[in-house]
Amino acid sequence: MNPVDIIIKKRDGLPLSAAEIEYFIDGFVTGTIPDYQAAAWAMAVYFQGMSDEETTTLTQAMAASGDLLNPRGGLTQQTLIVDKHSSGGIGDKTTLAVGPIVAACGLPVGKMSGRGLGFTGGTIDKLESIPGWTSDLPEEQFERQLQEIGLVIAGQTVNLAPADKLLYGLRDVTGTVGSLPLIASSIMSKKLAAGADAIVLDVKCGSGAFMGTLDEARALAQLMVAIGTRAGRRMTALITQMDQPLGSAVGNSLEVKEAITALHGQGPSDFQELVKMVAAEMLYLGQPRLDASGLEAFSSQVQQAISSGAAFIKFCQFVEAQGGDVASVRNPLLLPQAPIILEVKATELGTVSHINSAEIGLAVMEMGGGRQQKEDEIDPRVGVLCHAKVGSKVQAGDPICIIHAASPDEADTARQRITAAYTIQPHPADPLPILYERIT
Amino acid sequence: MNPVDIIIKKRDGLPLSAAEIEYFIDGFVTGTIPDYQAAAWAMAVYFQGMSDEETTTLTQAMAASGDLLNPRGGLTQQTLIVDKHSSGGIGDKTTLAVGPIVAACGLPVGKMSGRGLGFTGGTIDKLESIPGWTSDLPEEQFERQLQEIGLVIAGQTVNLAPADKLLYGLRDVTGTVGSLPLIASSIMSKKLAAGADAIVLDVKCGSGAFMGTLDEARALAQLMVAIGTRAGRRMTALITQMDQPLGSAVGNSLEVKEAITALHGQGPSDFQELVKMVAAEMLYLGQPRLDASGLEAFSSQVQQAISSGAAFIKFCQFVEAQGGDVASVRNPLLLPQAPIILEVKATELGTVSHINSAEIGLAVMEMGGGRQQKEDEIDPRVGVLCHAKVGSKVQAGDPICIIHAASPDEADTARQRITAAYTIQPHPADPLPILYERIT
Repeated sequence: MNPVDIIIKKRDGLPLSAAEIEYFIDGFVTGTIPDYQAAAWAMAVYFQGMSDEETTTLTQAMAASGDLLNPRGGLTQQTLIVDKHSSGGIGDKTTLAVGPIVAACGLPVGKMSGRGLGFTGGTIDKLESIPGWTSDLPEEQFERQLQEIGLVIAGQTVNLAPADKLLYGLRDVTGTVGSLPLIASSIMSKKLAAGADAIVLDVKCGSGAFMGTLDEARALAQLMVAIGTRAGRRMTALITQMDQPLGSAVGNSLEVKEAITALHGQGPSDFQELVKMVAAEMLYLGQPRLDASGLEAFSSQVQQAISSGAAFIKFCQFVEAQGGDVASVRNPLLLPQAPIILEVKATELGTVSHINSAEIGLAVMEMGGGRQQKEDEIDPRVGVLCHAKVGSKVQAGDPICIIHAASPDEADTARQRITAAYTIQPHPADPLPILYERIT
Repeated sequence: MNPVDIIIKKRDGLPLSAAEIEYFIDGFVTGTIPDYQAAAWAMAVYFQGMSDEETTTLTQAMAASGDLLNPRGGLTQQTLIVDKHSSGGIGDKTTLAVGPIVAACGLPVGKMSGRGLGFTGGTIDKLESIPGWTSDLPEEQFERQLQEIGLVIAGQTVNLAPADKLLYGLRDVTGTVGSLPLIASSIMSKKLAAGADAIVLDVKCGSGAFMGTLDEARALAQLMVAIGTRAGRRMTALITQMDQPLGSAVGNSLEVKEAITALHGQGPSDFQELVKMVAAEMLYLGQPRLDASGLEAFSSQVQQAISSGAAFIKFCQFVEAQGGDVASVRNPLLLPQAPIILEVKATELGTVSHINSAEIGLAVMEMGGGRQQKEDEIDPRVGVLCHAKVGSKVQAGDPICIIHAASPDEADTARQRITAAYTIQPHPADPLPILYERIT
């Protein structure tokens, strides 16, 4: 086999065989196929696309380039391992609430999570707002905690899909990021390598997400469901709205507080709705035999786990097991708190018609709540509470957001940015739905 | 400026500015833009193409990456320097005859030529069949010989368009050779750097050429004419037939003999016709003021230069000036001669309907008449005389070709390959024309 022939075949729109795709990825990872050939190949894929079959082979080849996990740990072979994945958005703290709910319903959740870069935060960064909490767990604790508590969230210590890391780095500097099969295989290679039996995908759609339009998000969701299904996994994708921050809180400590509030059955309704939806989907996929009529029953189970306090108790157990200060979970006023609180006020009478979510995320990052560079330290205290959402009626002078900052100057800079991110118009505007589509 | 933005702009089908193209080529040559970005860019160009304006800028940027020649030497500023370029074919010894004819008509011809690789030969390789002849000339001789004799053919000692060499090397291993703007700019960058005021392009078309169909050849010819014209050069392109070897002779010494025969006004008619056509085009472009009705008059001049013996005398002067044995030009039986002569005989009665020219070229290369690798030595003696051409009527047992080989074994291997390259059918077939189109 010859790399140039494989590039030319793809360039000319012909499907690549499994052997050709595996040869190419293997050669790229081991270095026998140089960067410039992989770059030309990626650009050919950008133009010619890939079939679902080719994309699945690519995804599996990238997954197989590193460690393949068996997250079952000490659980029985009959237990299905269900993972969830969000394509990333502003204020997305869903995992923090979904994990305890699902675990409280009896389905174990063992996740490896990452840190954030740019204007979207990482689950680990958020949980680290809880004093003492750590993601750095010995392997035996992962297994024991998964058995005993049913919920564990650890940092990614293993070498998951190194081919994806290499290829993504190359795509980033060769104008080949925006290719659907390459995006889908990048996400799914890490999910397949992580070893779950079933995966709920939360594909964000809107101005604050990677996929701006419903058509784009639908195409990505369908392709990822197809890849997972072909790879023998149970799959559901939810296409959810990301035209404004999810819930109110953006910023690490603020998001933990909002997740705790949701576990008490309170707080912003869009976030509560999404949490319950994702939790029910995970339980649905985790049942021994898939029963198409079962989703409704799992929604009730989820509601019950919240109302009974079981989900909140599970969260406390989880925090304690990983060294966190449970007192600050019971009383979130003990969580890290920024010294400067500043209201952002509406400048006119009207209805919020648009919020530039990326700008909100960037404002928080600038205050130190996110990383511009990989090695940046995060300030867990800072962030924004967006109380006015699309559809909210406001009068001039009404507080629309509350900034939590480390200094008055930083608060003021954020205020200007956030004011500009809000569009207020004289006509009414409908609130935004949270779910666009469910794809199985 | 940023290389990724330039790649993405081209990927999305937007035209690149002159500044962007110059920045990219300059960065690629100096190494600040890595191979993998140039590879992705080349693949984007493959899919999105380039306008004539972009292609001209690219060509000029590549030309400017190395030495820019002034081949006028000691000639007056009024003298127009006319170059010719063939896109390469089997048995193409046109320069050997055209150069002396044009010089005999008073228009100086000073060329830098190359050596051959693969199944097409190089002009320098062919001329080196003449004992003593050398292409290794001091610069002062180039100028003096151009003034005194009006004809000089030297090896390429300067650094012409290094950007093209780099980019071509990368295209060769990334599946991006077959892009029209990249092919045209590759050829024309070297022509522009060589500094001629006018260029006659001989674009070969057919099974033995890089461009297989008339549509492809026409598109390439039109683009190269457009590039040259935009760069201020006078341009004519001839699209000529390469569905069978040009003339009869394929192989270095045999081709020199056929060129000498043509200078005497004899030999295969297709080769004579092409030589006269190209020579007239060069004289036409070399006149001080372009006169659209002038081509006819130059055809008569060309015929006169041959009939009078002036062209042959010019060739003898040229060979002598570059150290060659003029006796072997006057009596070509003294040129290197292979020890084994073997006839290839027709196996049936009929008409030659097709000759696979590439196979003829490969048969000669295999016998040692061409280079498989850059460093291979050439045996000037070996080759094939293809006496039967498309349209020739043959009987079983008639000689269709004569092989000149170094050994009986090599002759026999070539005989099998050449027999298979000929298609003889029972129905009549028309001879092939030599000129398809003239593009100005």
